[in-house]
Amino acid sequence: MPSAPRPAASVTGDPLLLTPGPLTTSKSVKEVMVHDWGSRDATFIAINKAVLDGLPRIIHGEGEFVTVPMQGSGTFAVEAMLTSFVPKGGKALVLVNGAYGLRAKKILDVAGRANVVHETAEDTPPDLAEIEQILTKDSAITHVFAVHCETTSGIRNPVEAVAALVARLGRRLLIDAMSAFGALPLDAREVAFDAVAASSNKCIQGVPGLGFVLARKAALEETKGNATTLTLDLYDQHQAISKTGQYRFTPPIHVIVAFHQALQEFFAEGGVAGRGERYAENARILIDGMGRLGFRTLLPAARQAPIIVTFHMPKDEAFVFQRFYDALKDRGYVIYPGKLTVADSFRIGCIGDLHANDMSAFVATVAEVLDEMGVGLKSAA
Amino acid sequence: MPSAPRPAASVTGDPLLLTPGPLTTSKSVKEVMVHDWGSRDATFIAINKAVLDGLPRIIHGEGEFVTVPMQGSGTFAVEAMLTSFVPKGGKALVLVNGAYGLRAKKILDVAGRANVVHETAEDTPPDLAEIEQILTKDSAITHVFAVHCETTSGIRNPVEAVAALVARLGRRLLIDAMSAFGALPLDAREVAFDAVAASSNKCIQGVPGLGFVLARKAALEETKGNATTLTLDLYDQHQAISKTGQYRFTPPIHVIVAFHQALQEFFAEGGVAGRGERYAENARILIDGMGRLGFRTLLPAARQAPIIVTFHMPKDEAFVFQRFYDALKDRGYVIYPGKLTVADSFRIGCIGDLHANDMSAFVATVAEVLDEMGVGLKSAA
Repeated sequence: MPSAPRPAASVTGDPLLLTPGPLTTSKSVKEVMVHDWGSRDATFIAINKAVLDGLPRIIHGEGEFVTVPMQGSGTFAVEAMLTSFVPKGGKALVLVNGAYGLRAKKILDVAGRANVVHETAEDTPPDLAEIEQILTKDSAITHVFAVHCETTSGIRNPVEAVAALVARLGRRLLIDAMSAFGALPLDAREVAFDAVAASSNKCIQGVPGLGFVLARKAALEETKGNATTLTLDLYDQHQAISKTGQYRFTPPIHVIVAFHQALQEFFAEGGVAGRGERYAENARILIDGMGRLGFRTLLPAARQAPIIVTFHMPKDEAFVFQRFYDALKDRGYVIYPGKLTVADSFRIGCIGDLHANDMSAFVATVAEVLDEMGVGLKSAA
Repeated sequence: MPSAPRPAASVTGDPLLLTPGPLTTSKSVKEVMVHDWGSRDATFIAINKAVLDGLPRIIHGEGEFVTVPMQGSGTFAVEAMLTSFVPKGGKALVLVNGAYGLRAKKILDVAGRANVVHETAEDTPPDLAEIEQILTKDSAITHVFAVHCETTSGIRNPVEAVAALVARLGRRLLIDAMSAFGALPLDAREVAFDAVAASSNKCIQGVPGLGFVLARKAALEETKGNATTLTLDLYDQHQAISKTGQYRFTPPIHVIVAFHQALQEFFAEGGVAGRGERYAENARILIDGMGRLGFRTLLPAARQAPIIVTFHMPKDEAFVFQRFYDALKDRGYVIYPGKLTVADSFRIGCIGDLHANDMSAFVATVAEVLDEMGVGLKSAA
């Protein structure tokens, strides 16, 4: 007999989001949005400046890096980074093992920037020897693009090793750190890169609407005139904000004020170390609990980032994914909808304002739903 | 003797924004943002669909027009519109009488789209005879770009007459209606255009973070492959949303949910007729009241849109704009900071959740501030 739906665990009565972001944010982050600000008024300008000044601390890039915000989303920031940093006569090597690497290649193609791809399977990191061979053979390649945590599978890519190789061969590295930024360490004092892109609505736990690029000042200075759009021109955006404190075009004010609150909560939690540890604990509880129910992860533990976990779909015919999704949502949990291409699988996120008790309660709920669906425990996978 | 600062009039304790947007929104619009939603979950998809389905009603474009949302801001929507609709081999005539016309030209230049400009002074509408001559002489021109209300001065441009001319000469019209959309009538049954761009944070009274383009379906179909960026490709954006209900890239969820609430409040107020009338009343109270204090408007009444009003700077040396701005802010009113280039002037907006009593109280406050500054009333201008 199915049990009655349980009330959602969040304080705002919303389902908890076990997704790779947009994710569950704290109530305090959302509540600061119940105000209005003038976009060119000093009050907002000060809040925005605090955000832009705070972000480079996360990569220990104070002094050497600047934050260039980009309205839109993380992909807007990635397109801005690629089309501002890779000049028209440049060429990029794109490391692909999922949708976000492929998207970067598409951005370069649409913008008419020469590029080559080094592609590995969605559960496989790039091959450093092969990257070295490609870069050695093709001197036209100016930039390498890597994804830190490829959200497609949840794989953690070895950006540190890639960065060392790229630097040794005298090329420039651009990083899409989207779902990893703030949870996986990235230390600009030790890892060489020109720019890293991320967004407001991932591990800093803000609401969606703003992307940003942390750019090495000296490298950003070289990008003047590279961009092929007005809005996505990082050089122009940075010039305007550094001169006037104001955006060239209307910023998503409420999103930025929420991001400011989220950033304060991030630092209060201990920054990358504190947040990363909570997410790692979330992932452990999820993987262990799902494992006890018979679910197997796509990735081995060593390649698994504590961001989003891909599980093989159970072979039991009683397991219908949409029914599983809906039953979890009825009980207050939204997981990532839709399947992967690499394997018959589904994904569950560990990031956002989720804590150990939430993850334990989630695993118990999965057991309940499987029981209701008539899927045999232990034999699920 | 200066009077004590008065409490701000807004229910959230924030200064009222007398700006061209981002503007003062209702508390109910902001309060719906204190929740979280999954971007690929049915709950958000339904809210987003209601927004996209509702917007074409504002131009009586149901059936013939579709809404293509664009993350970012109004300018992102304008760049998306120009670079998606004007093909690489096309050519645009840009009608310029202010910053937003010039911005469109810059977008076309950066994107490598051929263009010519018909420019008039910031207080002067375009010259129809000259447009006719330009179009007749240059058969390469495929598109004309016009700004409905040029926020630079607040001038109302004659888009209806421009549209008739452009249609008669067999060209396509693209409109930037940003600050006019929802307040000035634009009837797609009578005015011929391919697309009109606007944003969430103007006369519909949402918060900033989303632009949108209402596109004539048949014209949008022709734009496949035109775009030179991935994120700003309207065709691709529309294809994805119409097939799956989902955005290609993370949408600004909270902004869209607030926009949904704002749209309901817009229709409840009587749509363009109701909202336009309230703004017209706001503008009347502002212009009459400021006139009694000696301020003169830049524009004659016939060219003045009820969106934002430009006033000549008083000649009295006791009038220091920054002091005026700060004293008004202390009393709960944020006006548009900064001056115009066309004339020594400043601007005050009439749009947003502002009502007759707010405008009257504002005028009384201006009188008080002038008195405090020692600026002679009546002789202010």
